[in-house]
Amino acid sequence: MSQNASRLPGRHFLQIPGPTPVPDRVLRAIDMPLIDQRGPEFAKLGKRVLEAIKTIFKTTQPVIIYTATGTGAWEAALVNTLSPGDRVLMVNTGQFAALWKTMADRLGLRAEVIATDWRVGADPAAIADHLRKDKAREIKAVCVLHNETSTGCLSPIGEIRKAIDAAGHPALFMVDTISSLASTDYRHDEWGIDVSIGGAQKGLMLPPGMSFNAVSAKALHASKTAKLPRSFLSWDDMLTMNKQGFFPYTPATQMLYGLDTSIAMLHEEGLDNVFARHHRLAEATRRAVRAWGLEILCRDPKYYSPTITAALLPEGHDADAFRSLALATFNISYGASFGPYAKRYFRIGHLGDINDATLIGALGATEMALALAGVPHKKGGVQAAMDYIASAQSGAAVRAAAE
Amino acid sequence: MSQNASRLPGRHFLQIPGPTPVPDRVLRAIDMPLIDQRGPEFAKLGKRVLEAIKTIFKTTQPVIIYTATGTGAWEAALVNTLSPGDRVLMVNTGQFAALWKTMADRLGLRAEVIATDWRVGADPAAIADHLRKDKAREIKAVCVLHNETSTGCLSPIGEIRKAIDAAGHPALFMVDTISSLASTDYRHDEWGIDVSIGGAQKGLMLPPGMSFNAVSAKALHASKTAKLPRSFLSWDDMLTMNKQGFFPYTPATQMLYGLDTSIAMLHEEGLDNVFARHHRLAEATRRAVRAWGLEILCRDPKYYSPTITAALLPEGHDADAFRSLALATFNISYGASFGPYAKRYFRIGHLGDINDATLIGALGATEMALALAGVPHKKGGVQAAMDYIASAQSGAAVRAAAE
Amino acid sequence: MSQNASRLPGRHFLQIPGPTPVPDRVLRAIDMPLIDQRGPEFAKLGKRVLEAIKTIFKTTQPVIIYTATGTGAWEAALVNTLSPGDRVLMVNTGQFAALWKTMADRLGLRAEVIATDWRVGADPAAIADHLRKDKAREIKAVCVLHNETSTGCLSPIGEIRKAIDAAGHPALFMVDTISSLASTDYRHDEWGIDVSIGGAQKGLMLPPGMSFNAVSAKALHASKTAKLPRSFLSWDDMLTMNKQGFFPYTPATQMLYGLDTSIAMLHEEGLDNVFARHHRLAEATRRAVRAWGLEILCRDPKYYSPTITAALLPEGHDADAFRSLALATFNISYGASFGPYAKRYFRIGHLGDINDATLIGALGATEMALALAGVPHKKGGVQAAMDYIASAQSGAAVRAAAE
Amino acid sequence: MSQNASRLPGRHFLQIPGPTPVPDRVLRAIDMPLIDQRGPEFAKLGKRVLEAIKTIFKTTQPVIIYTATGTGAWEAALVNTLSPGDRVLMVNTGQFAALWKTMADRLGLRAEVIATDWRVGADPAAIADHLRKDKAREIKAVCVLHNETSTGCLSPIGEIRKAIDAAGHPALFMVDTISSLASTDYRHDEWGIDVSIGGAQKGLMLPPGMSFNAVSAKALHASKTAKLPRSFLSWDDMLTMNKQGFFPYTPATQMLYGLDTSIAMLHEEGLDNVFARHHRLAEATRRAVRAWGLEILCRDPKYYSPTITAALLPEGHDADAFRSLALATFNISYGASFGPYAKRYFRIGHLGDINDATLIGALGATEMALALAGVPHKKGGVQAAMDYIASAQSGAAVRAAAE
Repeated sequence: MSQNASRLPGRHFLQIPGPTPVPDRVLRAIDMPLIDQRGPEFAKLGKRVLEAIKTIFKTTQPVIIYTATGTGAWEAALVNTLSPGDRVLMVNTGQFAALWKTMADRLGLRAEVIATDWRVGADPAAIADHLRKDKAREIKAVCVLHNETSTGCLSPIGEIRKAIDAAGHPALFMVDTISSLASTDYRHDEWGIDVSIGGAQKGLMLPPGMSFNAVSAKALHASKTAKLPRSFLSWDDMLTMNKQGFFPYTPATQMLYGLDTSIAMLHEEGLDNVFARHHRLAEATRRAVRAWGLEILCRDPKYYSPTITAALLPEGHDADAFRSLALATFNISYGASFGPYAKRYFRIGHLGDINDATLIGALGATEMALALAGVPHKKGGVQAAMDYIASAQSGAAVRAAAE
Repeated sequence: MSQNASRLPGRHFLQIPGPTPVPDRVLRAIDMPLIDQRGPEFAKLGKRVLEAIKTIFKTTQPVIIYTATGTGAWEAALVNTLSPGDRVLMVNTGQFAALWKTMADRLGLRAEVIATDWRVGADPAAIADHLRKDKAREIKAVCVLHNETSTGCLSPIGEIRKAIDAAGHPALFMVDTISSLASTDYRHDEWGIDVSIGGAQKGLMLPPGMSFNAVSAKALHASKTAKLPRSFLSWDDMLTMNKQGFFPYTPATQMLYGLDTSIAMLHEEGLDNVFARHHRLAEATRRAVRAWGLEILCRDPKYYSPTITAALLPEGHDADAFRSLALATFNISYGASFGPYAKRYFRIGHLGDINDATLIGALGATEMALALAGVPHKKGGVQAAMDYIASAQSGAAVRAAAE
Repeated sequence: MSQNASRLPGRHFLQIPGPTPVPDRVLRAIDMPLIDQRGPEFAKLGKRVLEAIKTIFKTTQPVIIYTATGTGAWEAALVNTLSPGDRVLMVNTGQFAALWKTMADRLGLRAEVIATDWRVGADPAAIADHLRKDKAREIKAVCVLHNETSTGCLSPIGEIRKAIDAAGHPALFMVDTISSLASTDYRHDEWGIDVSIGGAQKGLMLPPGMSFNAVSAKALHASKTAKLPRSFLSWDDMLTMNKQGFFPYTPATQMLYGLDTSIAMLHEEGLDNVFARHHRLAEATRRAVRAWGLEILCRDPKYYSPTITAALLPEGHDADAFRSLALATFNISYGASFGPYAKRYFRIGHLGDINDATLIGALGATEMALALAGVPHKKGGVQAAMDYIASAQSGAAVRAAAE
Repeated sequence: MSQNASRLPGRHFLQIPGPTPVPDRVLRAIDMPLIDQRGPEFAKLGKRVLEAIKTIFKTTQPVIIYTATGTGAWEAALVNTLSPGDRVLMVNTGQFAALWKTMADRLGLRAEVIATDWRVGADPAAIADHLRKDKAREIKAVCVLHNETSTGCLSPIGEIRKAIDAAGHPALFMVDTISSLASTDYRHDEWGIDVSIGGAQKGLMLPPGMSFNAVSAKALHASKTAKLPRSFLSWDDMLTMNKQGFFPYTPATQMLYGLDTSIAMLHEEGLDNVFARHHRLAEATRRAVRAWGLEILCRDPKYYSPTITAALLPEGHDADAFRSLALATFNISYGASFGPYAKRYFRIGHLGDINDATLIGALGATEMALALAGVPHKKGGVQAAMDYIASAQSGAAVRAAAE
């Protein structure tokens, strides 16, 4: 045990954009002995979580639970619905969009990509334009990330849906909601998503090792004729066995214990309260970054992410060196930078089971580390964040005082 | 929490052939907060477990760790090494062999199958015969389960290696060691295995959610030209990132904590002691089954499994009903029956972190449940098991007394 | 961690007569972060457990919760109600009765003792006789152990109450229910107990570190004038603070989390079912001991303990050596022997969170260890236990089959 | 479980001056199954922790471990060394000193008290003066708190030792180090303490339920003739059994697991580093309080506590209402106020397993809560704390960068 333990005293501030801090209650639910994955107790658990997870995606359609990380669920979305050589439309919003595109290539799909400068989300109009040019309706799927984890830019999924509809294009709409699910509003059914890809280790507050496909009737229909080879990730066996609360292959039972608990916690807090908390923490973080005089990577407020803020360091300052210093000095982890901006920014995750005081602690460590690293900046970031939070929480305080 | 908890008092006897009981020490190692999967502490952990797992497969070659259950690792073995339409030779030793064959079909391979009556392991001579007929050397892989989990029959992998060599056939040799690894001797390098498929939730005493491919140089070479589409399960990205102790996709960090601990426990006990313990428990179980007058499904002692014993009930007695009664009355779970023998047998798992007293408790519950279920049988099964164990442990007792 | 871990594989069989195996659900409840012991969340917890514990003692009067083991609660009973030089009547049923007597001496009380041969419980008639001779009514308290943990003899508390009443004696009646509470019927109010002393680590299935005084109005009244010095163990501060759900000194919050859970588990099973289970396991154990040809220390069936059975080894066989061999060979712990019978018997605890299969495992280990230790005995103990349990459980099995 | 869980999201900031946050590693060490408290594995554990705890008190003399909270250890110090009617000298530094005095009264001792205004520590000169007047050398013990938990004032124990010596007085010197041990330097042997009283739930980072007496030869000698009745808390039985690594009464085994781990963690960090961390956090906290324009209760810097800072609110502002608002709004707990200053101050605990970022989070929550509660204050407290920490940590950052 001791060999895994951090040598730094006190609690680690895990401000990477996922995996997020797992609440003790979830950890303890996971830390329970196994049960027979074919027995009656499991059947109850299986049925319960397969229903409960739908409330998180806001869907009444099936949600498939994979023992795999998000990358597996990306692949599941593609291989269950598409055939070799199919054209798919993707938007290169950042590193994870680029990785999904690489996956499509490797699977033998023909991905066409709408470029961005990695500092905005996906533009509905650009998607509509692209689709309108596809007179033959050959494009089989539009693939977008709701929240681009690598840049902190959120794409307007509801508007993209409208844009696809406006273009009158029949392509399937696949959305990666890995780093937005259970942190900001997401509406699988209302937005007409065909495959939503989710993961456990972000807003769901679980350890990594579980991922999801929420699936529309249209996607299921497509799967009947899709020709990409698949077996482990096939929807059909899953859907058949799930009816009894079971899984075709040995499931990660303990992750299901954890999922059962984390969904209960989200509903105890109330999804709308969860979303409001994330938006408050995000705005506080952005105010801190601006007060420091640093630039936010996402350059248009309409794309601001509620879960991740990437801050650019001034030219000549290595963000990786900054992260190392902050880790060694203040026991805090941030996300790394990618692609054209490698070593130029660090990402502050403000999602999952965190609260105002934890964020202030994280921003405080950041402000102190900026000073120690000799990064040019102004003081006052933490102050700006506190001012905003105090203002936003004044209603809660009034209620608390009245109780 | 309470909704996951068994309503029966005392410890559940999880005698399914995996997942096996997770030791408290492993559960507590897993129940630790996450760390940054790109940080320096993780790198140390990653390097340590990637080396340590090799000792379990008895290999010096790479072992790839998947966040997926064994089915994913089966698929990984096939898609990384084969191309659409490739011929593969399989031996239908039971339900899991049949499932692997179905997977091969779904992936577009042409599987040819050596049949058995599900009551023996794979016959080296039959494999050699089959390969000798393949004059064109078109068969690309021979796929065998070391231990067929569904029947409790062990196949002689070392001998099959010799048979392939004797046939002078160049096919890759792929072996599923999921329910034998870390429970009985397994020698990836010495036996010339090209891809060994392992899982976490059996002899490794971990929860499900992690699986392995141990890979030979020949298999790696084959992967360079293999044309089955793959991305999530690709070896190449894994091998590249693993050099630094990292993974290309978010790994299940907590499972790695657990793996680190479970491998340490296996070496503290000593692998040879672990194997001897499993063989003692297996023989004790078989003696109990015979004393009850029940038939062991595996009909030839040379194929007896060291980890699982399947016992046939007399005609007219439903093994599923027996299992339900035993569960409700004595808080014990067994494995189910499959295929031509569905409802005719139950499987007693005697693998993982169990000891003599636990086995006697399990066999005692079984003998009492046979009585309560009205299954014709003779008393004396537990007595036979105790007599064997006492005899086998007399050396240990002498040593204990001398200390 | 590893330095605490047992080096023997599999689950330890903790068959000492307490501490008993702590259920995973209780361990996980304890393994939670602390809360402010003066805050509103604690107040709710405190009020809840202070009420709930009353249901276990079957009382509507106050129960005081100490952060101390049973010895502290023994002292609390004496110092809160008695004055220096007070006469108390005790019955020397075994080692723990003797220790309580020693405590009384050290505290300056004058203990008079009714002797036994340590192979029976307390005799109501002897107590009545003794009290009748106390014409001056100087004896202030009668102190009896419900279950003498060191011998496995149960005293008839209800009958002793009647005997005291028949003698017309006003002495306080103090009963140690440490190793009987929550395992067999105990009725603080109905039996007119003045101070019941309980502990956490037996039938309540908690780790050691918490103990109880259930207190009658008569005892409270006595405490107003009792002159033994006391502070840490004083009832008065406790009762005052408990009204708000708080404690005068920092409580062991995590033990209260555990108590909250263990009481819930007892009621989920149903106290009467808990008692029936203990009586079944006790009778099965005694049948095993008799079948082995060993003598049960408790020589009169009317005093048989439902929680502990002490088995005498034949002359010339050292019970401590037997226990060491069983521990080293089969990973099982028994209780030691005391006083005139030191090294002559071992005690099998069959209380707390154990079930039929666990008991059979424990008895199986015992039967095998007897063989390995060369202790003269007959085989068939486990068989006798199984026969009894199967018979006793036939009704449960019928219900299970009907579901 | 859910009924114990906080309803507020994110981690609770437990800034009470103990119990302190229990590190996950300690919680997991505690969360392990019990072992036989009379078996060989326990003996090793017992011997190990009984030796290890001496390094924390900086003593080579015996340390007695009680299953009781600090109040029990206070009582143990008195009843083991003193006789009814003995005179003892105490210094009323605050609420806990007052409680210890009340205990002395209840035990029949004659306590004479040096008063303070609760805003300073104990004055060595006043103690020496008092002792010099005791020509008959009747005062048997001088009892002082190293750190007065209720006020945040530290007393100079080394100087008090010198003062007693200068007065040539033979009284025993008893020191409560409950809220200073393992957080700031404490030297049982070098300072000539006769009985040091420690607790688990502060610098030792354990849950409450364990306390300590470190005992000098002089104190042991006094115990031979001390006449206060005692049994549960007697040193003699403890010392006898401890030689074998055992305890006379059932110990709280799981707390010993935790102690084993927490002492290891303290030495891994290095005691001097632990002390420096506490001093840094304390100074940062005081700078924040001053920047807010609030008054620190401890009015003389030479008595500043390294573990607790009490901040007075302006007249007319209720500190309890402030604490309630902060708890409900920001999930943070502070210590309450006492005696003449009841409802006038709140106490910030900055001890145990906390680090710079956690303190900044706590101070940030405090600054925001002051605003929301309408308490007149200046902004800039967090900024002042950050400035100090960044300055104090610059050396660490340089080292981190060089690695």
